[in-house]
Amino acid sequence: MHDAFLREAIRLSIEKAAANEGGPFGAVVVRDGRIVGRGWNRVTSTNDPTAHAEIVAIRDACARLSTFALSGCAIYSSCEPCPLCLAAIYWSRLDAIFYSADCRDAADAGFDDLAFFGELKKAPRDRSIPMHQALRDEALVGLRAWIAKADRIPY
Amino acid sequence: MHDAFLREAIRLSIEKAAANEGGPFGAVVVRDGRIVGRGWNRVTSTNDPTAHAEIVAIRDACARLSTFALSGCAIYSSCEPCPLCLAAIYWSRLDAIFYSADCRDAADAGFDDLAFFGELKKAPRDRSIPMHQALRDEALVGLRAWIAKADRIPY
Repeated sequence: MHDAFLREAIRLSIEKAAANEGGPFGAVVVRDGRIVGRGWNRVTSTNDPTAHAEIVAIRDACARLSTFALSGCAIYSSCEPCPLCLAAIYWSRLDAIFYSADCRDAADAGFDDLAFFGELKKAPRDRSIPMHQALRDEALVGLRAWIAKADRIPY
Repeated sequence: MHDAFLREAIRLSIEKAAANEGGPFGAVVVRDGRIVGRGWNRVTSTNDPTAHAEIVAIRDACARLSTFALSGCAIYSSCEPCPLCLAAIYWSRLDAIFYSADCRDAADAGFDDLAFFGELKKAPRDRSIPMHQALRDEALVGLRAWIAKADRIPY
C-alpha cells in the first residue's frame, strides 16, 4: 500500500508541474488505507508561497475530515518535506511520513529546502533574515489572557 | 513606526483570540510604511493547522499584491515565528522580522514552537514522527522534468 500512495503523490508531482501549477511536488494524506487529502505545489499559479504540496494536502484533508488534528493519518510526499511542510506535519499531529526524493535531490533541482533547514538551525541573531525583538511585555498580555481563558481550544 | 506595527500585531493577537478565532497570535506584513497584509491565528475556527498568524498575513499580502515573493516587505508578529512561520518567511523572501513575545513565552502558554524547533534540528531518523524513504528513482522523473522545463517559474 505504501508504494501505491507514494506513486499517487509522484503522479501529482509530474502532472501538475507539467500543467504549470507550480513546482514538481505532490502529496497525499491517508487514513485507514484511504486517501483523504491531495495536494500539489501551487505557489506560482495561486500567488501563495505557502502552497507547498504537503500544506495543500493537509488543508484538504482537514477540510474533508472537519478537524485541525490529523492523528491517525500518514502523509506520503514525492519529496522529503521542507522545513515549512515538516513543521506543518508536526502541528497537524500526523503519525508518519513517507517520501521518495530527498532534500538533496530538491537542491539539485534548484530548491532551497536544505538551505532553509540550515537557517532554522541557527540562533536568531545568526540568520540571513534579520530578527528584532521589542515590546515583549505588551505581547505577554495576550498570552496571559490565553492561559486564563476558560474556553480556550488547545491545538 | 516599528512599534506601531508591532502594536497592531499585538492588538490582533488579543482581540481575535478573545473572539475564539484561535491561538493568541497576530501579524502584519508591511511595505513602504504601509500595512499590506494582516493575519491572526485561525487554526481551530477554520480547521486549518497551518493557519498561523504569519501564514495568514503572508497569504493576505500576496493576494493583495498579486505576487508570491514579498521581497521589499517586513513582517511584524506578536510572537517569535514558530518553525512553520519562519520557514514560510524564508520561502516568501521577506526582508526582516520584528517580534514581541518569544518562543519561551509561547511554551509557557502551552505551545510547541520550541519542541518543534528541536525536532527540525534532528536527523530524520531521530525525529518523533517516523520518516521512511522509498521509490526515490520514480520521483526523480518529476524533478528532472522540472530542470528540463523551459518555461518553469522558479520561486
